[in-house]
Amino acid sequence: MVRSWRRDGLGLFRLMRNIKLLVSYDGTDFAGWQRQPDQRTVQETLEQALGQLTGAVPPTNASGRTDAGVHAIGQVVHFLTASRHAPGVFVKALNAMLPPDVRVGNAWEMPQAFHATLDARSKRYRYVIDNGVYADPFQRRYSHHVYRHLDVPAMHRAAQALRGRHDFHSFETQWPNRLSSVRTILDIEVSRHDHLVRVEVEADGFLYNMVRAITGTLIQVGIGRWAESRVAEALAAEDRREAGPTAPPQGLFLLHVRYGHSDER
Amino acid sequence: MVRSWRRDGLGLFRLMRNIKLLVSYDGTDFAGWQRQPDQRTVQETLEQALGQLTGAVPPTNASGRTDAGVHAIGQVVHFLTASRHAPGVFVKALNAMLPPDVRVGNAWEMPQAFHATLDARSKRYRYVIDNGVYADPFQRRYSHHVYRHLDVPAMHRAAQALRGRHDFHSFETQWPNRLSSVRTILDIEVSRHDHLVRVEVEADGFLYNMVRAITGTLIQVGIGRWAESRVAEALAAEDRREAGPTAPPQGLFLLHVRYGHSDER
Repeated sequence: MVRSWRRDGLGLFRLMRNIKLLVSYDGTDFAGWQRQPDQRTVQETLEQALGQLTGAVPPTNASGRTDAGVHAIGQVVHFLTASRHAPGVFVKALNAMLPPDVRVGNAWEMPQAFHATLDARSKRYRYVIDNGVYADPFQRRYSHHVYRHLDVPAMHRAAQALRGRHDFHSFETQWPNRLSSVRTILDIEVSRHDHLVRVEVEADGFLYNMVRAITGTLIQVGIGRWAESRVAEALAAEDRREAGPTAPPQGLFLLHVRYGHSDER
Repeated sequence: MVRSWRRDGLGLFRLMRNIKLLVSYDGTDFAGWQRQPDQRTVQETLEQALGQLTGAVPPTNASGRTDAGVHAIGQVVHFLTASRHAPGVFVKALNAMLPPDVRVGNAWEMPQAFHATLDARSKRYRYVIDNGVYADPFQRRYSHHVYRHLDVPAMHRAAQALRGRHDFHSFETQWPNRLSSVRTILDIEVSRHDHLVRVEVEADGFLYNMVRAITGTLIQVGIGRWAESRVAEALAAEDRREAGPTAPPQGLFLLHVRYGHSDER
């Protein structure tokens, strides 16, 4: 295990350890991952608990931000700390201090160079659509309700046009200073599980609102409003107006993040 | 279809129809089924919507009360109304007016004599235990977390002693003026589904807190604190102190209610 010495606030050299956490959260009552003034965010909630545990609030880095209302089952976070707690102690102690809508599933001590954001090789998201005639009261925080019956095989076929390396500009909400909209979709699947329909997308990186824009587009195909071929056409157009609407946040889950090192999950 | 004429508030005779509803609700934010002053209850919420729809608030009867925090997937409710809406119109219109934590799944016009409470032949409840090491953030409203590993086959075997007709006094929270604690358990099963454990009980009737007391008792067996035989002993004792603690409400779901007539579900 590579460790490095850093000068702390008192000018003393301390051994800083790099800790990786697997974190899940119900995004309903959070204003997203990232710290914002006067908002309840996952980052601040986690950093506060870490501060309680270690005596110093370490800045945390996640594999990526999640928006307000978006959930995570396998978010990955890292931080540097002088604390000497074993990884298992971080898990137990953090879960004892965190509110019940955030859980730490596991912790590892990583090489100093590991970075949860920069080293992510791919991420997988799931979007859940409640396709019952009436919205399921138990799924309302965790799905987007579409009462019109969805043709799931048509959605799945249409989605396959998005596989591979493309400019996904048609499927992003414009974000200033984005260098490139080229990403690689490694896997995309649409499947039905009783009244719930899942859109799962794995890619080497995601643009802002990308899964939600893909889902909104596939819903147009699913309800029969758009031909299956229109998904490929929207992709080729490289114009956001050619794709469907952005589906709302509460159906979106960050499922897991893959890194180059052996994935200890 | 038998219908009867009732005198309305103006002294006019009106044809009263008996409507049966299948209702589901997330009990988290309700003070239970039954109307109470200054509390948000399912009954009042439903009656308000019926009042909006029919112009008169009809008293509703449910198959049984559910406590604060208890959920329903298949609660059955009936009410008499002079409204001439078709059953399907009740479903659509009520769902448009109800808050998202209550849904009407179906409606039927019933014979005048049908009574949701009195005619119920049996009910089935499910109690969900989250048996993950750390409480699942997505299940926290819908389960009771037990971190110690549960021996589910032992719980299932022990539960079989409760099948049949018995005095379940050991498994009820005392309630004044209860005539008899004798009930018949028709089916009782304990099963694991990944990290979730389900206790399902079907009976011709339930005493106050009966499923929650049974579950609390079976958990004692599951964690190895009590021998399997102690469930039968607690039943025979007819003394509440001999059974285990009452499990909390948020894991409990009313799954369905059976009636003598063909069950239109």
